[in-house]
Amino acid sequence: MQNNHVVIMAGGIGSRFWPMSTPEHPKQFIDVLGCGRTLLQLTVDRFNGLIPVSNFWVVTSRRYESLVKEQLPDIPQSNILLEPCMRNTAPCIAYAGWKIKQRYPDANIVVTSSDHMVTDVEEFRRVIAKSIEFTKNTPYILTLGMQPTRPETGYGYVSARIDVTDDEIKPVEAFKEKPSLSVAEEYLRAGNYFWNAGIFIWNTHTLENSFRLYCPAIASVFDSLMPYFYQDNEQKMIDKFFPECENISIDYAIMEKASDIHVFPASFGWSDLGTWGSLHAQLPHDTEGNAFVGNNVKMVESGNCIVHIPEGKRVVIQGLDGYIVAEKDGTLLICKLQDEQRIKEFSK
Amino acid sequence: MQNNHVVIMAGGIGSRFWPMSTPEHPKQFIDVLGCGRTLLQLTVDRFNGLIPVSNFWVVTSRRYESLVKEQLPDIPQSNILLEPCMRNTAPCIAYAGWKIKQRYPDANIVVTSSDHMVTDVEEFRRVIAKSIEFTKNTPYILTLGMQPTRPETGYGYVSARIDVTDDEIKPVEAFKEKPSLSVAEEYLRAGNYFWNAGIFIWNTHTLENSFRLYCPAIASVFDSLMPYFYQDNEQKMIDKFFPECENISIDYAIMEKASDIHVFPASFGWSDLGTWGSLHAQLPHDTEGNAFVGNNVKMVESGNCIVHIPEGKRVVIQGLDGYIVAEKDGTLLICKLQDEQRIKEFSK
Repeated sequence: MQNNHVVIMAGGIGSRFWPMSTPEHPKQFIDVLGCGRTLLQLTVDRFNGLIPVSNFWVVTSRRYESLVKEQLPDIPQSNILLEPCMRNTAPCIAYAGWKIKQRYPDANIVVTSSDHMVTDVEEFRRVIAKSIEFTKNTPYILTLGMQPTRPETGYGYVSARIDVTDDEIKPVEAFKEKPSLSVAEEYLRAGNYFWNAGIFIWNTHTLENSFRLYCPAIASVFDSLMPYFYQDNEQKMIDKFFPECENISIDYAIMEKASDIHVFPASFGWSDLGTWGSLHAQLPHDTEGNAFVGNNVKMVESGNCIVHIPEGKRVVIQGLDGYIVAEKDGTLLICKLQDEQRIKEFSK
Repeated sequence: MQNNHVVIMAGGIGSRFWPMSTPEHPKQFIDVLGCGRTLLQLTVDRFNGLIPVSNFWVVTSRRYESLVKEQLPDIPQSNILLEPCMRNTAPCIAYAGWKIKQRYPDANIVVTSSDHMVTDVEEFRRVIAKSIEFTKNTPYILTLGMQPTRPETGYGYVSARIDVTDDEIKPVEAFKEKPSLSVAEEYLRAGNYFWNAGIFIWNTHTLENSFRLYCPAIASVFDSLMPYFYQDNEQKMIDKFFPECENISIDYAIMEKASDIHVFPASFGWSDLGTWGSLHAQLPHDTEGNAFVGNNVKMVESGNCIVHIPEGKRVVIQGLDGYIVAEKDGTLLICKLQDEQRIKEFSK
């Protein structure tokens, strides 16, 4: 366990969850589920006991430094990595990977988002423990594949060669971008397609080799930064050289190119909570299909709504079907759930 | 002018305007129109110049004393009459009438609500001035009749004998309670039916005689209170004896019984602003029929809504047609405008 690390990516701005999530205070820092813990805190909670607190790494934007420190007071300061600008996930993971391997050359690293939801934490922990065990002694990248429960068009997919081994962990056949509905339906029928949850497990050697092979430019940026890790001027040098990294996701940069990838098909009630619709799907419902976060909501002749309001606020809603009603910091949004992909436009 | 008085009734609780209006802070004390003045202040403004400030009388509930003093700092303290309990309009008017006639035996008295709206103030003032002139030297009760513009079923009506005189002021034929739609349509066609705006003008003698004749019990309560008006113990005695008054409106108590009533048909953009619908009708609209009070409201694909929110609050509404969206003191209401008569039920 002492060699297990988790890299939590917490730099997103969560624009699809406006007005609950804003660039100043994105959703990973919010108690989205109304359970008393923010999504970031819930992410850390899930790994407690699997990974020592000294091995939690949070990569975020400079502007969220104080939010992270406030919400995760137990994480060592030097484990909070601050990006001076947004460069998508590949540079973020390389930064953490290079810094970890300098001090822990044989580390096992789990990479995860900070804003996803898991309902079956026990199964999650079993899967993570087995995944670390698998990658500890193999040169494979392991990705978690979520057993699909519907023909979701909002996720990427990963297909597995399921008949080559009896083990739970299978070789990856291919990564697939977000499909059309008819293609998603095919995937669901095929049985060997899984949602790409963006949770990767690998050891430092695999991580380093993958970057060297598929993203040599990014590898070279962090090679040159090696002398400054854990030093007083680390941040200053990061601010100077991090922006040179290509703006690219880990999927495009490595996963879709690498050959030795395996997938662990799993079911632990995962949701990326990427949209109001997915939050609506995850929360408990009343008999009319309404879901609330807020302790004083009265629904009259209303159904299929998601209501997310500050604690202490009183809301009475009558005659609404299929709407989002969300308030945060003096901004109220009322819009059709089916039009949620246009929230960015509404918020302008 | 020195003998002209106005009695402003400001004790209502405005329950149909929830959550903007609450029993703690009813609509007459609110800037309902978003113009910077509350309905009570606008009522006082309309009489300025017609009636000296020393002759403004406000009758309200004890609980609203500080609201009245705060909003009308120029009104003498002894002109603010505090009811210990709600007894409808007849006892309220008798209290003010008896107190006024003790000090001003030949006063002309205009009685008005505090929560109505008038758009043509110049015409209003002409009508009031002429009404006072009319009642100064006659023993008639004069009521203002609003020229109806639609078959409104939410107002009472007063019918006039319009062909007996060329003067603007006509004898009343009858008072009519809120009609059904078909009856209201008949009234509109008939041409001699007017909305009863609840604005009465009479002199102290007519007022006193009317109460003695039609409400002797109420007259007797205030006869016995005469020694205490303008004294230190006035409030104490009012608190003790006012509750003995019958709970009855001036319409039932006097207007529907009295014979010598006249009506002044007039058009000065009057609205009782009794409901969200009437406020919606009075406010300016955008091209989709939306009306706002609030300076940061964005409507997308929405029409025929009334939005009433606190200053500084931001609201984005998409895909709503015919709704009330109203917020006050941390309570938000979203409901269909067509169901506004059920707001009391929603608010429970």
